[in-house]
Amino acid sequence: MGRWEPDAESRFRAAALELFGEIGYEQTTVAAIAERAGLTSRTFFRYFTDKREVLFNGSERLQQIMVNALTQAPSDASVAEAIEAALISAGSFFEEALRPFARLRSSVILANTELRERELIKMATLASALAQALRARGADESDASLAAEAGIVVFRIAFLQWVSESEQGDYAQIVKDSLARLRVLTAR
Amino acid sequence: MGRWEPDAESRFRAAALELFGEIGYEQTTVAAIAERAGLTSRTFFRYFTDKREVLFNGSERLQQIMVNALTQAPSDASVAEAIEAALISAGSFFEEALRPFARLRSSVILANTELRERELIKMATLASALAQALRARGADESDASLAAEAGIVVFRIAFLQWVSESEQGDYAQIVKDSLARLRVLTAR
Repeated sequence: MGRWEPDAESRFRAAALELFGEIGYEQTTVAAIAERAGLTSRTFFRYFTDKREVLFNGSERLQQIMVNALTQAPSDASVAEAIEAALISAGSFFEEALRPFARLRSSVILANTELRERELIKMATLASALAQALRARGADESDASLAAEAGIVVFRIAFLQWVSESEQGDYAQIVKDSLARLRVLTAR
Repeated sequence: MGRWEPDAESRFRAAALELFGEIGYEQTTVAAIAERAGLTSRTFFRYFTDKREVLFNGSERLQQIMVNALTQAPSDASVAEAIEAALISAGSFFEEALRPFARLRSSVILANTELRERELIKMATLASALAQALRARGADESDASLAAEAGIVVFRIAFLQWVSESEQGDYAQIVKDSLARLRVLTAR
């Protein structure tokens, strides 16, 4: 009980996603996740505070990757170039091997109001972090918010496309295409 | 008790906002709002389901105004022009006389996590409604989401500027300036 288990976190994650898909998020208990994973509930709570965390505990790492990329963009990069660097850097998180998990996760979130709201809030937090990093680079206050929030719009739409059923393109290319579409849409 | 009171809704709203500002949102009860308004709690519940609704019950009307403007934009208007029409139409809602209320409302919302989350969700609902109206006009599926969500980013940032302490400019002009800034930011 409670001892270290090789790869326990990813076993819990896989078990939870399977159960969310099979019987629904609301109906899935931590006990059932642990049983499916061949581990104990006590071990589950060493990795996650609750079943919702299985879906959201990657977001801090994603945010760190994107903020780092923005901070490390060349000092002469424009606000838009710095945001683009941040969006593309998330490709190291959204690797091809993650796509099946990300697809399942998205369908679970879309089916549940509380989870959709949690996802929205995580995205708002991410936008604030990027805006703050832009200000730290010397961007104008309003431009920082506008660019970071528009960047997160592109990020969310590109991500939804990446996880959509028939999509084969890689994340970075989808982000670049989405940025190009926003550029066309806003151009006069 | 329960009878029709002239202008009861706006008396409740003014009383609630005063109390939210004086003693905080969490500490304010419906009984206290009714007392301050010189009306009864029973009458309060004829207008609002709870104290939170005092802050949010205008959003359906705002959404209706914006969706109507988008739907009625000329048939040859581009996606960006249709969104711009929707954003500017909200100026008939955000009249100068509303600004003191809107300022107070914003400061109450910013001070409370639950209210900030509710506001985010309302904005996401508004973006979905605009995207749907764009699709009904024949816009491409992804362009509709991208343009509607980027439009809501501009709307939120313009609104925050409109309610900021020192701001004197009118809402429509601030929206136009914000759209122009987004255009500059996204241009290559």
